[in-house]
Amino acid sequence: MIALLNIGALLLVVTTCHGQYEQEVDVPNIINSEYGSLWPLPQSVQISSVPFSLSRNSFQIVHSQKSSAGPNCDLLQNAFRRYFEYMFGFTKNQGRYRSGLVSEVSELQVLITSADPECDAYPSVTSDESYELTVDQPTAVLTANKVWGALRGLETFSQLVYEDDYGARSINKTVVKDFPRFAHRGILLDTARHFLPIKVIMANLEAMAMNKYNVFHWHIVDDNSFPYQSPSFPDLSQKGAFHPYTHIYTPSDVKRVIEFARTRGIRVVSEFDTPGHTQAWGKGQMGLLTPCYAGDSPSGTFGPVNPILNTTYEFMSQFFKEVSAVFPDAYVHLGGDEVDFTCWKSNPDIQKFMDAQGFGTDYSKLESYYIQKILDIVASTSKGYMVWQEVFDNKVKINPDTLVQVWKGNEQKYQQEMAAVTAAGFQTILSSPWYLNRISYGQDWKQIYMADPHSFNGTVEQKKKVVGGEACLWGEFVDATNLTPRLWPRASAVAERLWSDQSVTNIDDAYSRLIQHRCRMVQRGLPAEPLYVGYCDHEYKGL
Amino acid sequence: MIALLNIGALLLVVTTCHGQYEQEVDVPNIINSEYGSLWPLPQSVQISSVPFSLSRNSFQIVHSQKSSAGPNCDLLQNAFRRYFEYMFGFTKNQGRYRSGLVSEVSELQVLITSADPECDAYPSVTSDESYELTVDQPTAVLTANKVWGALRGLETFSQLVYEDDYGARSINKTVVKDFPRFAHRGILLDTARHFLPIKVIMANLEAMAMNKYNVFHWHIVDDNSFPYQSPSFPDLSQKGAFHPYTHIYTPSDVKRVIEFARTRGIRVVSEFDTPGHTQAWGKGQMGLLTPCYAGDSPSGTFGPVNPILNTTYEFMSQFFKEVSAVFPDAYVHLGGDEVDFTCWKSNPDIQKFMDAQGFGTDYSKLESYYIQKILDIVASTSKGYMVWQEVFDNKVKINPDTLVQVWKGNEQKYQQEMAAVTAAGFQTILSSPWYLNRISYGQDWKQIYMADPHSFNGTVEQKKKVVGGEACLWGEFVDATNLTPRLWPRASAVAERLWSDQSVTNIDDAYSRLIQHRCRMVQRGLPAEPLYVGYCDHEYKGL
Repeated sequence: MIALLNIGALLLVVTTCHGQYEQEVDVPNIINSEYGSLWPLPQSVQISSVPFSLSRNSFQIVHSQKSSAGPNCDLLQNAFRRYFEYMFGFTKNQGRYRSGLVSEVSELQVLITSADPECDAYPSVTSDESYELTVDQPTAVLTANKVWGALRGLETFSQLVYEDDYGARSINKTVVKDFPRFAHRGILLDTARHFLPIKVIMANLEAMAMNKYNVFHWHIVDDNSFPYQSPSFPDLSQKGAFHPYTHIYTPSDVKRVIEFARTRGIRVVSEFDTPGHTQAWGKGQMGLLTPCYAGDSPSGTFGPVNPILNTTYEFMSQFFKEVSAVFPDAYVHLGGDEVDFTCWKSNPDIQKFMDAQGFGTDYSKLESYYIQKILDIVASTSKGYMVWQEVFDNKVKINPDTLVQVWKGNEQKYQQEMAAVTAAGFQTILSSPWYLNRISYGQDWKQIYMADPHSFNGTVEQKKKVVGGEACLWGEFVDATNLTPRLWPRASAVAERLWSDQSVTNIDDAYSRLIQHRCRMVQRGLPAEPLYVGYCDHEYKGL
Repeated sequence: MIALLNIGALLLVVTTCHGQYEQEVDVPNIINSEYGSLWPLPQSVQISSVPFSLSRNSFQIVHSQKSSAGPNCDLLQNAFRRYFEYMFGFTKNQGRYRSGLVSEVSELQVLITSADPECDAYPSVTSDESYELTVDQPTAVLTANKVWGALRGLETFSQLVYEDDYGARSINKTVVKDFPRFAHRGILLDTARHFLPIKVIMANLEAMAMNKYNVFHWHIVDDNSFPYQSPSFPDLSQKGAFHPYTHIYTPSDVKRVIEFARTRGIRVVSEFDTPGHTQAWGKGQMGLLTPCYAGDSPSGTFGPVNPILNTTYEFMSQFFKEVSAVFPDAYVHLGGDEVDFTCWKSNPDIQKFMDAQGFGTDYSKLESYYIQKILDIVASTSKGYMVWQEVFDNKVKINPDTLVQVWKGNEQKYQQEMAAVTAAGFQTILSSPWYLNRISYGQDWKQIYMADPHSFNGTVEQKKKVVGGEACLWGEFVDATNLTPRLWPRASAVAERLWSDQSVTNIDDAYSRLIQHRCRMVQRGLPAEPLYVGYCDHEYKGL
């Protein structure tokens, strides 16, 4: 048995919640998990009962002499500092000693074994995030091929550290071998329905790193606003943002977000969704959207991007050339969801074009025509692309390496879709069960937790096409005031599903660890909401 | 028509929310309300189209020479400062002038007409909150009988002030005559399922004042924890709180909360719920709870307060004597809800007592016996009491001035209960439709808003027995991390129902004002969540 970890919450008494809702609250049991507060659970972990102490005054995180990374590796240097702060930031300067009784871990050596540690690289879907961690006295060793694994291992190490009854930091003798189950573990934030200040985005990138997420899917623009400031087309945000100064992301803001994410092993995949969801684009780019007709004359309103004009594709070429330079990730998300044909149908020029192309009255062919041209444009920038499932459903010809994001339907529907997409040979990620903007009363993290991207009928080859999943927090009812508690710790449930082994499904064990993990996030300054009745030793200090 | 107020949000485009949920979002129309951003709507208000300017450098809030209150009235002095800050806190030091073009309001005179302004009094259910406000140049006049009306009028005045396109503060010529529809307008916060730091309580008292609430119902202890530090019985929190130092309210904390509330015209009604919901009491007060039996011997677990022992009533006498001294309000809430009879039934001593009293096997008689004695104890402290509806339902003999809180059931059920309680001649407040801890996806504020405490079949006399209502935010899933955005602006919907005239039910008008009101709360530093897509000029700066 290991020492009882005491990082966070203890639930004392589980009782009714003012009667009438009792039946709805099906609360898991709290157990003394052998995995303490680890989240997401590593692939292999043995924690012994032998405790060592850690002193704030002498403990160091250092580069192993054999490491290919050294003090020039800013990414690791900053991570060392960050994790030291997480582990000791709340202690008094004078560390307590349990001298003589327990041994001490005085050093964590970080050893990068690959010749290129990738200190200055951007993470990608093929980045190696595996690591091994051996905690022993006097030295703990964290070994990884690349810095990405080292980042994950530092998080794990920090989660192994606990506070004993006297406030002293301790860690047990432990061996961890770890790697992610899925390569793509993302969170979608929507900065178009509401503007999210950079501060909020960064806080959530921090939270993502604490949960070993590695993709920030930035749904940056939509019908409602266009906060992305484009150097090539400044009118897009000048006229399409909620406010052209206070509610935009400047090029330097975007750079800061990307670098902040990079140093936490997180990719930034930008989404510029077309041809639908583009009302805000139309404000700053005359002629881009389709004029809708009421009878014989334009109604003054506009529909999706106008797919029949050369100017549209000239604009898109230049725009996506810029985007592909601004966002270093190998993928761009091109959207392609929810195209409403009503306006296209009303427009006589579109009708003529349909006739000329032989599309008849099948407007999904027109949609495919448009998307095909956009895909070609983006492919010419040497980027890969992600698309929403409609692009696949509508049988648009897509590159073999296209990543199809499944978001529609209930369990049965999305499992069919995952089977169909992978049977067609495409890579896919799952989002349907993880629309975290949808809220309900009670412990909804459990069903979030139990959904699995592999739970569909398919061959081993098909299962290999599942690259991961994304939790989505659409912004209709979310802004800086409530985003973080709404997302965390519910997104933590998705994080474990995507990182840990498929067999990790014990709800009681998960609950017991997650309570402590959420208190750890609170202690690190994030307003992660409670799962149920109880408390954290260190409650949230903000408002 | 009045000048378009520009305090807060503008919704530019209302569109779908990623498809599958579109049908669920029934969004009201945004109109240019003739009442600007006023919330809750005053009983009578005429806003003319004539704008005056306000200068940060010269505008003053002063006591009228005829006022019975003067600079010695701390309550008003602090309110003047608070509202000046709300109105000008976000402007640059040098006020903009639209010199020559518009006249200026340079002074708000506050005139208290009653001989006793009640500067140092505590608010009560009979406090006079009425006021009249005349905004003209160069002087605006706020007239009220008591300071309580002045506080409400200052809030209204501050809501009339708006920022023009140049950032200059303006206010239109206006006449307001206002008073509350209901005398008891409360919010219940639960500090037992989770501990709420004083900072969070105070922020929500501020929000309450912005919404003209006047009762903080402090559900301070429950099964899960006993954070109230009792000087008479220190073991109650020492052993019953989540933590005896970090998760308690000391006597000085309680005093601070009460004074903070008082100076905002808010009563603090404490609830010490018995005989159920008392598990945490049992930890620090041996012998208080009923020992449960498994067969012939005690099982080691405990049930509700033991109603058959003299020591129970000796303890309660002393405890409620202390409570009645600590909390100055004329009412104490005694709970009385959800008593589980299982443990009582298992205990042979209880069975003997039941026989001796001739209660047979009707344990509700035993409950009534207990409650009766508690009511008598509290009545002897000269306090009135509030109780949950079960006490009435179980036909306990209660004083004629008892306030019965209706919390159970759907619309039909609670309307029947309101009719029954008032037909029996008791005063009542409604909470059933306002359990704001219950959350769902979308715009649930609308049904919250449309519920009305008078919508039951009853005589005029019965309707007069309805003293008001309370929004309840039970704490099972709420703590410092998410309380404020979950409560606001949803509790604002209840606030208008309880303050404004019964005829104020236009959802479009309410929505248009509420969007601006929520942005005002955000600008004043409160993380009040968004109602739908859009933005505030001044977004939330916290995390």
